[in-house]
Amino acid sequence: MAQRTAFFVSDSTGITAETFGLCTLKQFDLPIRHIRLPFIDTPDKARRAAEQINKVMEIEHLPPIVFSTLAVPEISTAFRQDCRAVLFDLFESVVEPMEKELGIKSNQNIGRFSDVVRSKEYETRMEAINFSLEHDDGQTHRNLQEAEIILVGVSRSGKTPTSLYLAMQHGIKTANYPLIPEDFERDCLPASLLEYRNKLYGLTIDPIRLSEIRNQRRPNSKYADLNNCRYEVAAAETLMRRENIHFLSTTGISIEEIATKILQIINSKIL
Amino acid sequence: MAQRTAFFVSDSTGITAETFGLCTLKQFDLPIRHIRLPFIDTPDKARRAAEQINKVMEIEHLPPIVFSTLAVPEISTAFRQDCRAVLFDLFESVVEPMEKELGIKSNQNIGRFSDVVRSKEYETRMEAINFSLEHDDGQTHRNLQEAEIILVGVSRSGKTPTSLYLAMQHGIKTANYPLIPEDFERDCLPASLLEYRNKLYGLTIDPIRLSEIRNQRRPNSKYADLNNCRYEVAAAETLMRRENIHFLSTTGISIEEIATKILQIINSKIL
Repeated sequence: MAQRTAFFVSDSTGITAETFGLCTLKQFDLPIRHIRLPFIDTPDKARRAAEQINKVMEIEHLPPIVFSTLAVPEISTAFRQDCRAVLFDLFESVVEPMEKELGIKSNQNIGRFSDVVRSKEYETRMEAINFSLEHDDGQTHRNLQEAEIILVGVSRSGKTPTSLYLAMQHGIKTANYPLIPEDFERDCLPASLLEYRNKLYGLTIDPIRLSEIRNQRRPNSKYADLNNCRYEVAAAETLMRRENIHFLSTTGISIEEIATKILQIINSKIL
Repeated sequence: MAQRTAFFVSDSTGITAETFGLCTLKQFDLPIRHIRLPFIDTPDKARRAAEQINKVMEIEHLPPIVFSTLAVPEISTAFRQDCRAVLFDLFESVVEPMEKELGIKSNQNIGRFSDVVRSKEYETRMEAINFSLEHDDGQTHRNLQEAEIILVGVSRSGKTPTSLYLAMQHGIKTANYPLIPEDFERDCLPASLLEYRNKLYGLTIDPIRLSEIRNQRRPNSKYADLNNCRYEVAAAETLMRRENIHFLSTTGISIEEIATKILQIINSKIL
């Protein structure tokens, strides 16, 4: 099948247009090349973006698919007048029906992220990233009481990327501690974690997958050996079970899914 | 104005529904409380989600606003039959018009991320996160040739969060190196970076903002002193200008915007 080009056109970063557009395109079995056109924030830039898209159409002999989030009418109109591709204007599809449904007018806010930086929420995210970096892999106990989540699990079970994701996307200060053979021999949690039991969440992983991942790092080591991985995973799960730590398997699921599942567990505790 | 509740209902993590929904809601001046209902992947769970939403409606005497991305018709139908809130089904708004426009049927793919983990793209992202962590703040020169981007700039100009964002969201191996007073005295780039000149991108920042940020870390230090910040920023900019390094100011813009701007510069070089 001929490849189609998809454009994501936005007055800001284009992240929303791209996230939604790619998710929509996944519903079709189409080979897609995608191009983001961000910061289209004047009618003039909108006309130039339309031209660029029209040019691709001439070359490919197929109209590109365009997802746009252009909030300001003048910009959106300029774009639509010139663009000859298949156009899905997300604001038109949703904001306009919403105005009718809610009986209020939209404010035509330009830019998804423009005021974000000065917000408390953004500051929280930046602080959480710093915190999670400092508290990666049990590096320090300093200010551990500030952690909102402490992930535990064997080495390479997914703690680091999950911690950074929780910090970056959700602004949650997330520390992580490895469970290591020493802990299994003593058969108890690292002492520094005992007082934070209610913040602990465990990650576990299929030993075969773990052995694969560790082999990429240290080929043919005891660390990566399948039997050793089996032992560590079983010991970690026994420990977490006994300590009443909620844990979940990261095998075959993405950090987005792991983070979502952990937040579900936390929410179900609060409710 | 009374607070409205918005729900983001998805058969997977709900990230797409939430990203798009929050962006849409920003177009309205409504105080919003938001709740994500992820992993709604059976008709039964869909009915329970609808019940939960209807309950909120009874308590608040206002219909919640629901953004859903439910790709499978049985699940979506079960949800729609029961849910009495204001419902924006994103697939219905876009996927159905798209089927008509493209003349092909959608494949009703469940789950935005379900097959992601086994994909090359996901592996690339995980490798990029590891790489960027190892190469944060000039920690190591090992494998620096693998870096796709190397960010330089004074301490606290935004290099670390931007590097991690580029790795996590775009799968780009991003190293970062601080420009420090020693470099300014020698008046040249760190030696280890010279051979990677074409991968260097600079971040700069308003000295007043820099001083604020540094004061949070080390109050009343020389490091945070406004005059010192002015000196470092001016010296760094002079150095980057002379070395022909593209640089941009991070003052008042988010890591999403910084990353988007850097990718724009890179794309304009390729095109």
